[in-house]
Amino acid sequence: MRLTTFSDYALRVLTYAGTAGERLITIEETAEAYNISRAHLMKVVNILTKTGYLKGVRGRSGGITLAKRPEDINLAAVVRATEPDFALVECFATGNQCIITGCCRLPNVLNEALNAFIAVLDRYTLADLMLTQRDFRAPHIRSGKRRGPDFIDASRPAAGPSSPSKRTRSAAPSKS
Amino acid sequence: MRLTTFSDYALRVLTYAGTAGERLITIEETAEAYNISRAHLMKVVNILTKTGYLKGVRGRSGGITLAKRPEDINLAAVVRATEPDFALVECFATGNQCIITGCCRLPNVLNEALNAFIAVLDRYTLADLMLTQRDFRAPHIRSGKRRGPDFIDASRPAAGPSSPSKRTRSAAPSKS
Repeated sequence: MRLTTFSDYALRVLTYAGTAGERLITIEETAEAYNISRAHLMKVVNILTKTGYLKGVRGRSGGITLAKRPEDINLAAVVRATEPDFALVECFATGNQCIITGCCRLPNVLNEALNAFIAVLDRYTLADLMLTQRDFRAPHIRSGKRRGPDFIDASRPAAGPSSPSKRTRSAAPSKS
Repeated sequence: MRLTTFSDYALRVLTYAGTAGERLITIEETAEAYNISRAHLMKVVNILTKTGYLKGVRGRSGGITLAKRPEDINLAAVVRATEPDFALVECFATGNQCIITGCCRLPNVLNEALNAFIAVLDRYTLADLMLTQRDFRAPHIRSGKRRGPDFIDASRPAAGPSSPSKRTRSAAPSKS
């Protein structure tokens, strides 16, 4: 279970812009600060501007800045704006072909779990993620350090499919 | 945010096997019942057998059946066994390169949300998903019917990337 890179980068650029405060930032410096794709970040900034989280300031010393106060940027709302869907299983998406749709009890369980996930994000705003500008200068990565959930042992071999191409569930495999 | 097709199919085959009760099922009939890939299902059954959820019975009239009672098959445990990871953002995975790792506050928020998600699944077992054999015979799909969360309007254009290839976050895009 993953969020898209799109959401990941959206949260990063908002954190960066929020931390910069009134200073205008640029896509270039944000991409450089995180060492991530400038092209990908441009698309992210475009959506965050369209959805009212960022605003652009034109001119020679123009740039981008938050369009709202950090405490008014709810994290659940951001993720809802940036995730293409929350199709945990096939029947959550359009084009569903699962034969037990309608009588299956799994969707209720997964909806309850998803609502619990979103409800937690709903309790936080961008203000809770603010850092200092210094935090972006010195790398804090410690070798082997992972920030993921305790219930997952990263060293264990994954039970599920491991190759990236198999990890998408954008289309159900054709019947063979 | 999605679960893998692997987890989706795992939950389906367990539901099918549980509903069949003492009758042995086969991969072929399960693939046919759901109209899904037999090859994909074979891998799923293999993992579910290795992890002690299914057992195979050899012989002319052999097949597969649940290795435990449905009420002893916890849904959170199944998903933990079938999802390759819960790497919601880059720093939850191995190979993390995010420069603010260590001082960033997002992982705590996401871990809390993920734990809330898993905690809901932890309250359910396969017994809660049991159907009748008849449910697999008549298609219950109603045109346009989607079982996803209420907070998502499936008809809205997705804000995030929409092409399947862009939806994986298996590898961060290279810096451009």
